[in-house]
Amino acid sequence: MQLPTYDDVVAAAARIQGHAHHTPVLRSATADARWDAQFFFKCENFQRMGAFKFRGAFNALSKFDATQRQAGAIAFSSGNHAQAVALSARLLGMPALIVMPQDAPAAKLAATRGYGAEVVLYDRFTEDREALTLRLAVERGMTLIPPYDHPDVIAGQGTAAKELFEETGPLDRLYMCTGGGGLTSGSALAARALAPQCKVYGVEPEAGNDGQQSLRAGRIVHIPVPKTIADGAQTQHLGAYTFGIIRRDVDDILTATDAQLVEAMRFFAERMKMVVEPTGCLAFAGACTDAAAIKGARVGVIISGGNVDLARYAELLATR
Amino acid sequence: MQLPTYDDVVAAAARIQGHAHHTPVLRSATADARWDAQFFFKCENFQRMGAFKFRGAFNALSKFDATQRQAGAIAFSSGNHAQAVALSARLLGMPALIVMPQDAPAAKLAATRGYGAEVVLYDRFTEDREALTLRLAVERGMTLIPPYDHPDVIAGQGTAAKELFEETGPLDRLYMCTGGGGLTSGSALAARALAPQCKVYGVEPEAGNDGQQSLRAGRIVHIPVPKTIADGAQTQHLGAYTFGIIRRDVDDILTATDAQLVEAMRFFAERMKMVVEPTGCLAFAGACTDAAAIKGARVGVIISGGNVDLARYAELLATR
Repeated sequence: MQLPTYDDVVAAAARIQGHAHHTPVLRSATADARWDAQFFFKCENFQRMGAFKFRGAFNALSKFDATQRQAGAIAFSSGNHAQAVALSARLLGMPALIVMPQDAPAAKLAATRGYGAEVVLYDRFTEDREALTLRLAVERGMTLIPPYDHPDVIAGQGTAAKELFEETGPLDRLYMCTGGGGLTSGSALAARALAPQCKVYGVEPEAGNDGQQSLRAGRIVHIPVPKTIADGAQTQHLGAYTFGIIRRDVDDILTATDAQLVEAMRFFAERMKMVVEPTGCLAFAGACTDAAAIKGARVGVIISGGNVDLARYAELLATR
Repeated sequence: MQLPTYDDVVAAAARIQGHAHHTPVLRSATADARWDAQFFFKCENFQRMGAFKFRGAFNALSKFDATQRQAGAIAFSSGNHAQAVALSARLLGMPALIVMPQDAPAAKLAATRGYGAEVVLYDRFTEDREALTLRLAVERGMTLIPPYDHPDVIAGQGTAAKELFEETGPLDRLYMCTGGGGLTSGSALAARALAPQCKVYGVEPEAGNDGQQSLRAGRIVHIPVPKTIADGAQTQHLGAYTFGIIRRDVDDILTATDAQLVEAMRFFAERMKMVVEPTGCLAFAGACTDAAAIKGARVGVIISGGNVDLARYAELLATR
């Protein structure tokens, strides 16, 4: 198994150029003063379809050959990866089929269909999602794009950190959320190449710290579906590619509680005027629990996305 | 009375450089598709203290001479101008005194004091705010900075549109909110210099269309305090400077209803992941009511600010 390298991140950056947004890096004097640090927030909530996932999906799909393009892409996801594959396929003029649970939020079903993808529903309690997807992939000749454990997906996700370092120069510490590890491993590739001194930290929900356990154990630890508001980080395990890079290039994996995520979400809304989904709050919440370490440091924070149902978001903002 | 010119905007840009944020211009494929236009959103909700007002206040205060600096700045405002003057004074190392109604939201009082300003409270029902402010200004030798009708304030506000045009190149139409006219007149100066073909539109709350009435009447029309959720545009009349520029350089003033503002606010949150205060929604809401005119056009929209009480914001998001 050949792990992707920073050269793959560079190639991905060229492929997504002009298709993905070059998202802004925002500052907050309030955050800097409160934590006595210099924060640089890479705002992937402003990415197309609202999350960094577009980078990896577009990179993977744009590498399809003529035969693959004709049949199109297939993915299983109830979250941002579904929309990322659907939008990328539409932009590249190929069919997309997304396998989603039949009880997925209506808004997500509508958004995925809105991007022109065909949606196949399954019953989470009686059907095996992966088996169904593989069967459909074979029947239709479609290429499966997994949500994180794929070299092209990892390389694409790494372009966000690449842009961040190119804009800010050297950083002392870089934080990002860890679900299946696509963003974390891609970011680590960029950090190792562009800022070798920068320490790199993934942040998981406290209830779902499989990545942290995996780093400690030196092997991929599987956990039951964790109960957390960070729905994008409810993954049960890292992948072979992502873990391979993470164990080599990531300094540690930290955790944040749901209460800390809500606090970060309120901070983003109140002080930085940004809508950030719970999973997108992990990186900043993790950095803030690391208060002694970030003091005086230049700290990169990747805000992974902003896709949250408005009613749910309003409810969380009103929480005290 | 000498109206400020685009040269003053250029000088203001040099003064605020490195102090104000150069805010990002964001795009939205969804907005573009829905209205068949190309939108360029200048995001002053990401400006320091959360609104464009910082630009004008900092420009005005940075022109103070040594005597003025020692005594400091005084302003009356219950809104963004208060925080803009307070923060600018702190950054420039001078005292600031803000006259605010005693029933102003606790969060705004706290924010203004948090920037280090002294706050003097008055009773809106029994005291005359302007008389009190003038008396304090004389007693303390402080320089009064009005919220909009001042050449340095206007020139400072014009820097946002200057940055927008420099980033996007020519635009066909430019929309911004109109309260007292500081942002509108400053933006018009920039538009006339940088994009002579660009049509410029102010947008007022429907309930408070004094600017529209003034344009029609050819004189400054005064109205009672309008009832609208756009609290930053509850001004009762334009100023002498702002009207002088607006009547010369602005193509028209449009209006938007509170319901349209809430719709725009939900769009910004849901699709663009941004917290925008009701007043900040005016420009986009106005552009959207102008649907036939913006079709096929390159449309600049200045989002003026993002300062809205979180509980109130959550309530508005939950509105249908």
